[in-house]
Amino acid sequence: MSKLDETISGLKFMADGLIPAVIIDANDKAVLMVAYMNAASLADTVRTGKTHFWSRSRGKYWMKGEESGMTQDVKAMYTDCDKDTLVIEVVQNGGAACHEGYRSCFFRKLTPDGDWQVQGERVFDPKQVYKKK
Amino acid sequence: MSKLDETISGLKFMADGLIPAVIIDANDKAVLMVAYMNAASLADTVRTGKTHFWSRSRGKYWMKGEESGMTQDVKAMYTDCDKDTLVIEVVQNGGAACHEGYRSCFFRKLTPDGDWQVQGERVFDPKQVYKKK
Repeated sequence: MSKLDETISGLKFMADGLIPAVIIDANDKAVLMVAYMNAASLADTVRTGKTHFWSRSRGKYWMKGEESGMTQDVKAMYTDCDKDTLVIEVVQNGGAACHEGYRSCFFRKLTPDGDWQVQGERVFDPKQVYKKK
Repeated sequence: MSKLDETISGLKFMADGLIPAVIIDANDKAVLMVAYMNAASLADTVRTGKTHFWSRSRGKYWMKGEESGMTQDVKAMYTDCDKDTLVIEVVQNGGAACHEGYRSCFFRKLTPDGDWQVQGERVFDPKQVYKKK
């Protein structure tokens, strides 16, 4: 077992074998997205230097940007006091992490009257990037 | 049902009724911690302007800082494209979010040889802040 395998097996994955990863921009630390990794996608993330996740909604393993080209180059990785969450600093290729075309997935802000309001502008048009097959 | 209740019920909570919340510093956007909220703790967070969570490890509802005094004042709240995660900007009172005394819970960085290395210095001594009862 390599040191990295040992380190990964020392993390606290949830009952479904996943650990949440907060992806932040290496430049200004903005939170770009939160996604989930299993042990294999985490190992591949470290090995390749590109973020890999497990999609709960699609039930599949994926490299971020495999379809859109908007891959993420890993610059640093952190874990917390409980070792049950990751923070990963990346350089976001293509300028947008969100499949809806925004730089960050967190483009909805709570208003004083308790509703969500869209903030920021789309970097790309999802219809152009994700062609229907 | 108030607009806020409607907005909260429109979020995608996990099977256990919780939603992850990434807590970031309102000043420099550093990720301080990731914790979980249920609908009640989220409503109280908005209503009081102080973060409230559900502790999975302790199985209890808590206001952040209720014991240590290191409360968090909410400045802004965001959700993502899938409405299954929150990002909350706070002013961290006492200068440290982590119960181990560090400013951020993410004080361990992955080294090139695959191990965790502690980064940063303790802001407080946990033994002094959390007196054993």
